[in-house]
Formats: sequence, C-alpha cells, structure tokens
Amino acid sequence: MTIARTPEPPYYAVIFTSQMSDGDNKGYGAMGDKMVELASQQEGFLGVESARGGDGFGITVSYWASLESIEAWKNHSLHKVAQDKGKAEWYQQFGLRVSKVERSHFIGL
Amino acid sequence: MTIARTPEPPYYAVIFTSQMSDGDNKGYGAMGDKMVELASQQEGFLGVESARGGDGFGITVSYWASLESIEAWKNHSLHKVAQDKGKAEWYQQFGLRVSKVERSHFIGL
Repeated sequence: MTIARTPEPPYYAVIFTSQMSDGDNKGYGAMGDKMVELASQQEGFLGVESARGGDGFGITVSYWASLESIEAWKNHSLHKVAQDKGKAEWYQQFGLRVSKVERSHFIGL
Repeated sequence: MTIARTPEPPYYAVIFTSQMSDGDNKGYGAMGDKMVELASQQEGFLGVESARGGDGFGITVSYWASLESIEAWKNHSLHKVAQDKGKAEWYQQFGLRVSKVERSHFIGL
C-alpha cells in the first residue's frame, strides 16, 4: 500500500474503520482486492489507502471527486454483495464516515 | 484499538497516512502512545483510530470538534517534538489531510 496521489482539495474521503470477526474470515482478502480493483474503475475515484494491524482493527480511506460518485459506488451491485458478506460474516463492527477534504500536505512523495 | 465513539456530525477528521522508514524505528511506539494520551487531553479532541500493517504502512485518524482545536494540537510544543522526530527518523513519507465529517454510520457498536 502507498500514499494515494490525490489532487488538490476539495474532494471527499470515505473513512471506513472496522474490527474483523474472530475466525478464519475466508474469502475476505480476495474480496477486498476485487473491491479495490472495481472501485478504481468507477467515475470519480481518486485513490484508496488501507491498513490493518495484527489485532484485526483496520482503516480504509477511499477518495472521491463528489458525493454523487460515493453514492454510485455505495449502490454498485457487486459492491453490495461485498457489503452484505462483510456485515454477515467478516466484520464484528464498523464505522463509516463521509468527509470533505479541505486541506492536504505531503512529505516525501 | 477500537472504533471511536464520535458525536453526530459535523466535526473534523485529520487523516494521517504514513510509510515507516526501514530500520528499528526506536522510540516510535512509546512516542505514539504518549501522543495519543496527550491528544486525548486537548480541548476539542473527540477520538482517534489507528492501524498499521506488516508492510509498515499506517493510517491514523483523529477526530476534532473544530479547526481551531486541530491547529492548537498541531502547535502543541510536545507534539512538535514528535513531529520533528517523525520527519527526521521514523517516516519515509506521509500524507496529512484535514476533512470535515458530514455523515456517519455505525454497525455493531
């Protein structure tokens, strides 16, 4: 994973934080990869960053040009399948926040 | 780490993404813990979430009541010492984005 090369603000960030369920969480990694690939093909997608620690707590931030592009991705049929699997099997709990990026600053890119 | 119990929006999120330097990054863990403790004592602090994977890529999101509280934390003298160490030693690269949370949604909390 690398730092997303996003354009100058303003744009939107969807902050998704989650605690994995106990168990083997079969299929999660493959689905995650597929969703990143699919998201990156959507109109308005600007980038994604993701990290998960050994305790099963993870953060994924995806960046979007508009609220409309976020809404379209939320309602994408294949993404909805993944969301349902996530709620039913993979995530013990999660939080999702939609925010508008107003300022950014990068070092070392 | 757990999902931050933030209030209803609007509030602010500071999204800090970083790639650790190679090497032993001595003192990083202790400084990180100290900064979380210190941040949580600041006016306007609403919560923090953090994850770092085995590849050294990490995301920390801190939540704040106002832009003024973010600015005050940025300029806190002990935080500035940590920032300087981070730039000089611990981080190969990082990105920092200040965003305004407009919508949130939680499952399983």
